[in-house]
Amino acid sequence: MKKGRIFSGMQPSGKFHLGNYLGALENWVRLQHDYECFFCIVDWHALTSSYEDTSRLPEHIHDMALDWLSGGLDPEKNVIFVQSHVKEHAELHLLLSMITPLSWLERVPTYKDKLQQLGAQGKEINTYGFLGYPELMTADIILYKADTVPVGEDQLPHLELCREIVRRFNYLYGEVFPEPQAKLSQAPLLPGIDGRKMSKSYGNEIPFAASPEDLRARVRLMVTDPQRVKKTDPGNPDVCTVHTFHKIFSRDELDEIVMSCRNAAIGCVDCKKRLAERMVAALADIHVRRAELEANPGRVREILAYGAERARQVAAATMAEVRRVMHLS
Amino acid sequence: MKKGRIFSGMQPSGKFHLGNYLGALENWVRLQHDYECFFCIVDWHALTSSYEDTSRLPEHIHDMALDWLSGGLDPEKNVIFVQSHVKEHAELHLLLSMITPLSWLERVPTYKDKLQQLGAQGKEINTYGFLGYPELMTADIILYKADTVPVGEDQLPHLELCREIVRRFNYLYGEVFPEPQAKLSQAPLLPGIDGRKMSKSYGNEIPFAASPEDLRARVRLMVTDPQRVKKTDPGNPDVCTVHTFHKIFSRDELDEIVMSCRNAAIGCVDCKKRLAERMVAALADIHVRRAELEANPGRVREILAYGAERARQVAAATMAEVRRVMHLS
Ligand code: SF4
Ligand code: SF4
Repeated sequence: MKKGRIFSGMQPSGKFHLGNYLGALENWVRLQHDYECFFCIVDWHALTSSYEDTSRLPEHIHDMALDWLSGGLDPEKNVIFVQSHVKEHAELHLLLSMITPLSWLERVPTYKDKLQQLGAQGKEINTYGFLGYPELMTADIILYKADTVPVGEDQLPHLELCREIVRRFNYLYGEVFPEPQAKLSQAPLLPGIDGRKMSKSYGNEIPFAASPEDLRARVRLMVTDPQRVKKTDPGNPDVCTVHTFHKIFSRDELDEIVMSCRNAAIGCVDCKKRLAERMVAALADIHVRRAELEANPGRVREILAYGAERARQVAAATMAEVRRVMHLS
Repeated sequence: MKKGRIFSGMQPSGKFHLGNYLGALENWVRLQHDYECFFCIVDWHALTSSYEDTSRLPEHIHDMALDWLSGGLDPEKNVIFVQSHVKEHAELHLLLSMITPLSWLERVPTYKDKLQQLGAQGKEINTYGFLGYPELMTADIILYKADTVPVGEDQLPHLELCREIVRRFNYLYGEVFPEPQAKLSQAPLLPGIDGRKMSKSYGNEIPFAASPEDLRARVRLMVTDPQRVKKTDPGNPDVCTVHTFHKIFSRDELDEIVMSCRNAAIGCVDCKKRLAERMVAALADIHVRRAELEANPGRVREILAYGAERARQVAAATMAEVRRVMHLS
């Protein structure tokens, strides 16, 4: 018996790094066992912040699906699909727009922030669609009557708005939608190999698709305790990026590593080797799945088509109900 | 050889009165001979100003189709359909929303005016969808690659915005859409039987579906020159509502009527009888068509289904092109 129905989406914006995996995907992989899950590559949402050059969108969608599947999302257990394959998202978005006060969207705290932030990057995104971002997100979620939405802290205002829109819809036309509940996820924050936030723009990322050799090479480049010059110097794990990674990948031997570092019983080169092998082992299944998928280029497309088919069935049933209560055809 | 392709729509908001017919529909009936026309009952638009009670929408849609068809729109010559039957309107609306600066919509002159006007009527319509009205109108028009749009003076800002959005789309993604041109229509303004603006809210309207008996009865109630008390008093047609109607329905004998009135050669009762018979004759074909349609209740539904089928074919082809240039699926 499943605990409920989840909807969650991600914008296709290029290949995952390890931080993306641990920050979101790993959580989904856990959730798929307990919930009926709809996982959606929200390509229409990607247009809200980058509509000017969409040429790499198909590639990004394919890469994201590959990352999800190799990360362990099961395409039978979950409905894995692309937003623009299910046109009902657009129809419901339009209908919801008619009942949503403009002020509700304008007052979303992230709206002005993100506008400023992207504006500073020279992006002209003060569009009608950008303002409507949480409206489309609401349509995405309730189209599947999801009752649970895994979100980070920063997404809570969007979900609150979603719940307000649901209440308004139900009040106007009858109880059609459940009010989705937030399921807060606290993912470990993984730094880049230089200790700063992991980000492609810093060039400090570990690609999610990194081969074992590549993983080892990147771990070798990680910054350690800068005060530890010689192997005989005691180290301070608290200021060491390698230690941050050990906390995630070597939980069962963490105490020993920390002690060995402080006692100078282990050198940084060996410490990194141990980490690299733990990471290679942790990602081994993922590499196998990725290799299988890459050997069969049509497979990802098939899986997405199958997911779209299943998503459409649920979406069509919801829209039939929505049209009925709204007296629309 | 047709002169071009027209898109035009009307919101289903109840049965026509004669002013609606002469103000818009009669123009369409003329245009259908020279243009390839898409005439659309825009039910989604109706939600922008009245989303709270939609229970009469199906009836209003049926009545509008009946008015159009009995008014002389040929369902073979034209594509006559309901907006919500063609989901591509919603998809294109969403995609256009991503490239339309918010300020373009906010500065449409009619936006603030209408907001105030409807607000004064106690309608809470300051919604996201209401702001997006011209965006949806743009999607409606360009989904069929219409090059010509019959508009009244008041709709010109909407069409200008539509042209701006088209230019922006074509600039970003390539030349997909023609820039539609306005075709200004100057319809005669028909007063109500009391001389004020014809409006159901004044109760002074002549229903478009009025029977000959009803027409005669309403003409008898028309206000005439209030100074003309006795039949022997000379009349002043310039202040007489009957005369305003004669200008439309009795053009070929107008000079004679005016002279007879000024000379007191005709009494108001007879003058009204002449008008009523002219109106009955002018609307005779319309009554015949209406009676035929009413005798066959499924016919209107069939015609709308047929129109939706044809509209969808064109819309699907346009969307395939839009998705291709935007790299979407
Ligand atoms: S031994 Fe390990 S934890 Fe200690 S400083 Fe070196 S790399 Fe960091
Ligand atoms: S005669 Fe005709 S035009 Fe003259 S006042 Fe009477 S109704 Fe009006």
